[in-house]
Amino acid sequence: MIQLIHFRLCPKSRSIRLALAELRIDVELKDERPWEWRQEFVRLNPAGEVPVLVEEDGRPICGAYAISEYLAEAGGHVQEEGGLFPGDRERRAEARRLVDWFQGKLDREATEVLLEGRLYSRLKAGASGAPDAETLRNARTNLRYHMRYLDHLSEERDWLSGPEMSFADLCAASQISCLDYLGEIDWSDQGFARQWYARMKSRPSLRAILSERVPGAPAPPAHYADPDF
Amino acid sequence: MIQLIHFRLCPKSRSIRLALAELRIDVELKDERPWEWRQEFVRLNPAGEVPVLVEEDGRPICGAYAISEYLAEAGGHVQEEGGLFPGDRERRAEARRLVDWFQGKLDREATEVLLEGRLYSRLKAGASGAPDAETLRNARTNLRYHMRYLDHLSEERDWLSGPEMSFADLCAASQISCLDYLGEIDWSDQGFARQWYARMKSRPSLRAILSERVPGAPAPPAHYADPDF
Repeated sequence: MIQLIHFRLCPKSRSIRLALAELRIDVELKDERPWEWRQEFVRLNPAGEVPVLVEEDGRPICGAYAISEYLAEAGGHVQEEGGLFPGDRERRAEARRLVDWFQGKLDREATEVLLEGRLYSRLKAGASGAPDAETLRNARTNLRYHMRYLDHLSEERDWLSGPEMSFADLCAASQISCLDYLGEIDWSDQGFARQWYARMKSRPSLRAILSERVPGAPAPPAHYADPDF
Repeated sequence: MIQLIHFRLCPKSRSIRLALAELRIDVELKDERPWEWRQEFVRLNPAGEVPVLVEEDGRPICGAYAISEYLAEAGGHVQEEGGLFPGDRERRAEARRLVDWFQGKLDREATEVLLEGRLYSRLKAGASGAPDAETLRNARTNLRYHMRYLDHLSEERDWLSGPEMSFADLCAASQISCLDYLGEIDWSDQGFARQWYARMKSRPSLRAILSERVPGAPAPPAHYADPDF
């Protein structure tokens, strides 16, 4: 069986878990703490990062970008219907712009800092260099800006990148779910984003992830797994 | 005619310029200084980042990820020969792993810091927060590690991701060329990487870029544009 090496509170790992579940591809999950730099793992992915998809013949596909495009290419042709990047070439470009926005910009400007400061620094033995108070404050300011953008997209469109769900929705939901685990999302001002996330939360792919607990991490807030939040 | 909005010393802009030249697609270049957050530019790309490809009907394709996949999809099918991601699905996954390595990891760990500290901080009026000496020192340490990896890939393979040139080579050459502009690359220890870069430098696509000067920036070292360096 295909394996996915992942960390349960890594948003990029979550985006690939969602993609696999939406595409109905069964995988065996293997937990990895990438910051431990296990030799066997680094041999698979010299970048030392999750997620890594391991094919049945042992070949690794490394990183959310390579894996998502690899999954999208199954069958050898660009899929105009269903799949991770539905629609024509322009619509797929819009989905990819937003994948980059959520996995890149939102992650860099908010999620990564808050996960590092609030969670990873607790899980890593002898961790040093946790973000200081000002860095955390800046990340929260950035997050408010990102939530307004998510709200704007949710108001304008059925799904974030257009009329059909795409990998952009899965990437956004992955980021938001990790931030929500930390209690960092203020849902009171985000009517449209909230409706979009409620729809995401009702999907079996995300429900499975939200029902998990993460060993060593504090419990999430009560609304975290509740579709009626 | 298609337009490419870019900044001449932005590695991601360079990767798309190389891709367009290798695919023989003519574009009109428009210079942008993204840190000025020009309203007209931010309306095209809310992320405020270059590169942006503007189609003849005015539609923007934003960011190196969306643009490269958009160009690779021209014709509506995955191209197994030539193009930005040649070969089968596994070979394309390997090219994308390395695109992520160079545009992501190398950029974040070295290029971005050195460009910011040595160049952008001079170009930006009233810039604040230039990286300190320790940050620059760490970026140079990371760069030595990346150059060893580039040397290793160049020794093992004809091109960085396999037997044919791919977008991974264009991304690596874009990063290296910006670092080389700053005189940050020590070529003395990098025999195989040097041979690979000499081949890249002899291609008309990169030659055109290396022959340019950047207004407001210091001149590059003498070997910068020379294929026999």
